[in-house]
Amino acid sequence: MDEFQYIKKIAASVPRSSEGLIQGIDDDAAVIEGPRGTDWLVSTDILAEGVHFRRKWMDFETIGKKALLVNISDIAAMGGVPWFYFVSIAVPPDLSEKNLLLLNKGMQAVAAEYDMVLAGGDTTSSKGKLFISVTIIGSVDKGKAVYRKGARPKDGIYISGSLGGSRVGMGLLAKGIRGKNAEELLRRHLLPAPRMNLGAWLAEHSLASSMIDVSDGLISDLGHIADLNGVGYIIYANKIPEAAQMGKFAARLKLNVMEAKLTGGEEYELLFTMSEEQEKCFIAESSRVDLGCDVVKIGEVQFDKKDRRIYDGEKPVRLKKTGFAHKIGR
Amino acid sequence: MDEFQYIKKIAASVPRSSEGLIQGIDDDAAVIEGPRGTDWLVSTDILAEGVHFRRKWMDFETIGKKALLVNISDIAAMGGVPWFYFVSIAVPPDLSEKNLLLLNKGMQAVAAEYDMVLAGGDTTSSKGKLFISVTIIGSVDKGKAVYRKGARPKDGIYISGSLGGSRVGMGLLAKGIRGKNAEELLRRHLLPAPRMNLGAWLAEHSLASSMIDVSDGLISDLGHIADLNGVGYIIYANKIPEAAQMGKFAARLKLNVMEAKLTGGEEYELLFTMSEEQEKCFIAESSRVDLGCDVVKIGEVQFDKKDRRIYDGEKPVRLKKTGFAHKIGR
Repeated sequence: MDEFQYIKKIAASVPRSSEGLIQGIDDDAAVIEGPRGTDWLVSTDILAEGVHFRRKWMDFETIGKKALLVNISDIAAMGGVPWFYFVSIAVPPDLSEKNLLLLNKGMQAVAAEYDMVLAGGDTTSSKGKLFISVTIIGSVDKGKAVYRKGARPKDGIYISGSLGGSRVGMGLLAKGIRGKNAEELLRRHLLPAPRMNLGAWLAEHSLASSMIDVSDGLISDLGHIADLNGVGYIIYANKIPEAAQMGKFAARLKLNVMEAKLTGGEEYELLFTMSEEQEKCFIAESSRVDLGCDVVKIGEVQFDKKDRRIYDGEKPVRLKKTGFAHKIGR
Repeated sequence: MDEFQYIKKIAASVPRSSEGLIQGIDDDAAVIEGPRGTDWLVSTDILAEGVHFRRKWMDFETIGKKALLVNISDIAAMGGVPWFYFVSIAVPPDLSEKNLLLLNKGMQAVAAEYDMVLAGGDTTSSKGKLFISVTIIGSVDKGKAVYRKGARPKDGIYISGSLGGSRVGMGLLAKGIRGKNAEELLRRHLLPAPRMNLGAWLAEHSLASSMIDVSDGLISDLGHIADLNGVGYIIYANKIPEAAQMGKFAARLKLNVMEAKLTGGEEYELLFTMSEEQEKCFIAESSRVDLGCDVVKIGEVQFDKKDRRIYDGEKPVRLKKTGFAHKIGR
């Protein structure tokens, strides 16, 4: 069983809405009613040592930073901005006080950058490895949250920034390859930049019909959108921007660039859809603002939910796997 | 370093309030503004295998139930009722699919009992042990939340239910002692009953000046209240009700009953303070409602923060340790 099969199983019997709850499971964050024309967004993630991070690849300040950044990305994928965070940690006996405080220093640095306040948490000992669970509460103007649900046939499919860099960066870390030209690729993996300005702007102007952040891999995350909306897609893979310096280092790591772009996880770019009308507004409006990243059209939503095609120019692309899924349950 | 020293260290630089945030760290739950005359309460806990639960002591359905119950107790300690829950789990390779679904079954049973909706979460693999992080969002009428802060000199100190049973129950589990007379003690440890009705009633009628749930141990949790309010206390330990059947089994386990009542953790009873005026209202009103448990006066708040005394009748009680604190950081 993988994580998605498990979630599907337990989600089957869960009510989808309730008084005060606007959006429950099935999205990057839950939406609950807030005060004075706002809704609250609630997102939670758990990071496991040896799965999400390794001490020999990342110092503790970086682990702390990344723990918050990936959660901020979930808030961004709803079109919101983060406000409060809660941190629960299970601390193994071999973690020094110095490293524990470095972990916290990293979180506080990101919190300061995004103007977030620590509002609670839980600290316990761990018989084994380090676990960090982060819950972030953000806000969005009432009714403006962008959901995974909403994509319709003929909508354009868009991606922010570039893809594949986190996958290559992880490969470089694993092989111990550093150097000036590798820096940006390493940063893509270690310190992702949540597309908060883009997400909030799209939400504010009602310019996205659906949105998700790329955490499991483009095709896997697009699959979540397609499944939820009962639609298919065509992706023009050659249109997807690749991270700077990626080709050279991918070759050195014997990684396929196309596969890294389509299936590499932990990219934290925004994948969203726009109707024709939204596209027109986007083109007219987006040049006037600094969204902090480029946005590129990479495909179209298809009517038939079984119609899921990927092209590299004229050539169909076949993938061995679509992205990352945690194996759970023996 | 223990968990409280760590929290003190990281909390030093954290702003205590922010727009939308009514109460941040330093309490059982955070309070954020909600819609239409309510405030939201947010509480989060992490449960680590081998620390909070052991597979040989508890089946997975019980682990799932307890994970939610202890979090509901945090909401109860603010005077609120739970609404939504978020579950993040890190699943080790040796956990069977059957047990994973049992864990979920336990959580759903408690959710149904308390009319709560699963609103989100995260599922990942774990290289090691099982970790469960639960976040619960509850609500309270605006301005009615009861805080740890608020106790004043001369206030009476009150406890719900009984104490020591969870400590003895854990001892019975560790020794493999079962039997009909031990059932209630085992239940005290395995399936604590959050005092939701009492907490909500006290909040609704503004009858508590401060409140906390007993998770670390009575004297330890009372210490949090005393520290935060800059006050001391006298506790009449012989007034504290002990769990049924406790004496006999404590003797068998060679546990000191008085020590178990004063320092045993995971009791999830409500410890609260009332001013003289609140006491009068409480006496007049409480007999008309079913609060689901008894409430007993066990002491008084003292003016001098260094004045912290415990008596067993006339005899002062000296404790070797006041309660449980997770050791963290090498």
